[in-house]
Amino acid sequence: MASHSNRNQHMSKPFTVDHLVRFSHCDPAAIVYYPDFFDLQHAAMEDWFRDALKYPMPEMIRNQRLGVPTVSIQGEFTKPLAMGDVLHWEVRVLKLGRASVQLEYRGMKDGADHLKIVQTIVFMDLDKQVAVPIPEELRSRIEEFLAG
Amino acid sequence: MASHSNRNQHMSKPFTVDHLVRFSHCDPAAIVYYPDFFDLQHAAMEDWFRDALKYPMPEMIRNQRLGVPTVSIQGEFTKPLAMGDVLHWEVRVLKLGRASVQLEYRGMKDGADHLKIVQTIVFMDLDKQVAVPIPEELRSRIEEFLAG
Amino acid sequence: MASHSNRNQHMSKPFTVDHLVRFSHCDPAAIVYYPDFFDLQHAAMEDWFRDALKYPMPEMIRNQRLGVPTVSIQGEFTKPLAMGDVLHWEVRVLKLGRASVQLEYRGMKDGADHLKIVQTIVFMDLDKQVAVPIPEELRSRIEEFLAG
Amino acid sequence: MASHSNRNQHMSKPFTVDHLVRFSHCDPAAIVYYPDFFDLQHAAMEDWFRDALKYPMPEMIRNQRLGVPTVSIQGEFTKPLAMGDVLHWEVRVLKLGRASVQLEYRGMKDGADHLKIVQTIVFMDLDKQVAVPIPEELRSRIEEFLAG
Repeated sequence: MASHSNRNQHMSKPFTVDHLVRFSHCDPAAIVYYPDFFDLQHAAMEDWFRDALKYPMPEMIRNQRLGVPTVSIQGEFTKPLAMGDVLHWEVRVLKLGRASVQLEYRGMKDGADHLKIVQTIVFMDLDKQVAVPIPEELRSRIEEFLAG
Repeated sequence: MASHSNRNQHMSKPFTVDHLVRFSHCDPAAIVYYPDFFDLQHAAMEDWFRDALKYPMPEMIRNQRLGVPTVSIQGEFTKPLAMGDVLHWEVRVLKLGRASVQLEYRGMKDGADHLKIVQTIVFMDLDKQVAVPIPEELRSRIEEFLAG
Repeated sequence: MASHSNRNQHMSKPFTVDHLVRFSHCDPAAIVYYPDFFDLQHAAMEDWFRDALKYPMPEMIRNQRLGVPTVSIQGEFTKPLAMGDVLHWEVRVLKLGRASVQLEYRGMKDGADHLKIVQTIVFMDLDKQVAVPIPEELRSRIEEFLAG
Repeated sequence: MASHSNRNQHMSKPFTVDHLVRFSHCDPAAIVYYPDFFDLQHAAMEDWFRDALKYPMPEMIRNQRLGVPTVSIQGEFTKPLAMGDVLHWEVRVLKLGRASVQLEYRGMKDGADHLKIVQTIVFMDLDKQVAVPIPEELRSRIEEFLAG
C-alpha cells in the first residue's frame, strides 16, 4: 500500500465511516473471517450511497430497479482485526466508466492500514438484466470522490 | 479466464467438489451475494484439506494450532448463480511457497464458468502468530494439485 | 427433550439429513454461533422440501410465488457443536394447519441430542402478501411426516 | 405481545439501541431472513454489555475468559422488516439467576412491534466449560434493567 504515501494521489476527500467489529464477524481464531470483511465493505458502500451520494440503495433497488452487482473484487489483508475493534473505512473512486465504478476501500485502525479492497461495480437494470449508464445526477456526485 | 483454454496449463487433476446454492446465500436480487461466494470458496478449501490432502482443518487448528489466514484474494464474477443451482468447484494450486500457497477456484455450473477466485494463504502458528513452513507431509500432497 | 423417550410419540419416520459444521459457523469460542444453528436448520427445511416432499423451495418461490416465512421459532441448545462435527437432523411435523406447519428439528451428534428447534411457518402468496392454504398435493406429502 | 400494554410490567427503563437493516440481512423475498434477526439481537446484547453495563464482551471473553452461551431462545416475527429500515430494540431483563439471565428484546419500527425475542444466557468459564456465578459488580448493573 506504498502508493498511499503519495499525497498527490488522493487530492479529493474520501468518504469515511466507522464500523464496529462484532462477535459474529470473528472466527475460531478470534479474528475477522475474510468473507465478513467483504460484508463490512458492502455496508461501507451502502453508507456511501446513502450519506455521501444521497442516493440510498434500498430505494434505488426497489423503486428504480437499479442494482450494482460486483463484477470483480480484490482484497489484501495485512493486519487482522478482532471483536471490539473499530474499523475505519476510507472510500475513494478510482475509475468512473459509463456504467461502472471502481472503488477503493482502505480499512484502518488507529491510523494504521489493516486491509484494502478494490471493487468494480456495474449499474444494472434488474428487470432487463443489462448494464445501463449511471444516472446523470448520481454520476456528478460520484465524481466528487474520484482520487486525484 | 482465457488462460483456461490452454489445455497444457492444467495437466494435473484439480480437486472438484459441488456445493448447493442455498436460500441464505442469495440477496434481494435473488442471486448469490458475493461475500457468500467467498464463504462457499472457504468451504471448498476445507473440503480440499479434508478429502484430498487428508489433513482436516479442524484438527490442524485445534491440535497443531496451525491456521491458514488469507493474505490476498481476488474474485471475478462473470455470471450469477441463484438458489437451487449446483456450484461445481475446480481447485488448483498455482504457486507453492515455503509458508504460502496460491490457489485458484473455478466456479462452474453446467460446464460454464461463472466465477473465479484466486487466494493466497499463509501457514501460521496461531499461538506465536508467525508464519511457519508448510509441514513436509502436507507439502508433498499439495504438490499433486500444482497446475502444470 | 424427555418427551422423545416416549416411543409412541414419533411413530412416523422422520426426515433425516446430515450437515457438516463449517469453520464459518463457529465463533471465537470455537463452537457454533446460535444464529448459524438457525441457518443450518433452514437448510434442513430446504432439504426436506426438495428430497422428501419433492417440492423444491427455489421453484416454489420463483414459479409459484409462494413463500414460507417463519412466524415463530424456539431453540434449545443443550450441547455445543464444533467445526468438523457432523450434525444429524431429524425433522418431524408437529402440527399441520390450513396455511401453517409446525416443525420439530432434533439436532444430534453420535446419537446424542445437542439441540432442538421448533418452528412455525406460514404459506404466503409473495405478491399479495397474504397467507394461503397449503397446496393440496403438498399437504398430503407433509402429512406423512406428522409425529404420531 | 399484549402483556406490554400493562404499563406496570416495565417500570424500569429498558436499554434501547437502533440498528440499520442492511442489504445482507435480506433474503430473496427482500425481507430480513430470521437467522439474521438473531444476529442483530446478539449485536443488541453486545451493545447492552458495552454501553449500559459498562462490561464489554470482547474484554470479558479475552481477559476474564467468561462467555455467555445461549441455552434457549424464542422468536416471534409478527411484521417483516426490509433493507433500509431502522430496527429499534428495547432490551429488558425478565429473570436474573445465579449464573443465568433471561432477556427480552422487543424489535420495533416507527413505534410498532415487529418482532420479539426472549433469550436465556448462562455465564460460563470458557476454559473449564462450567457455569459460574455472575460477577457481583456486573450483577448489580444487570438488576437495573429488571422488568418491574
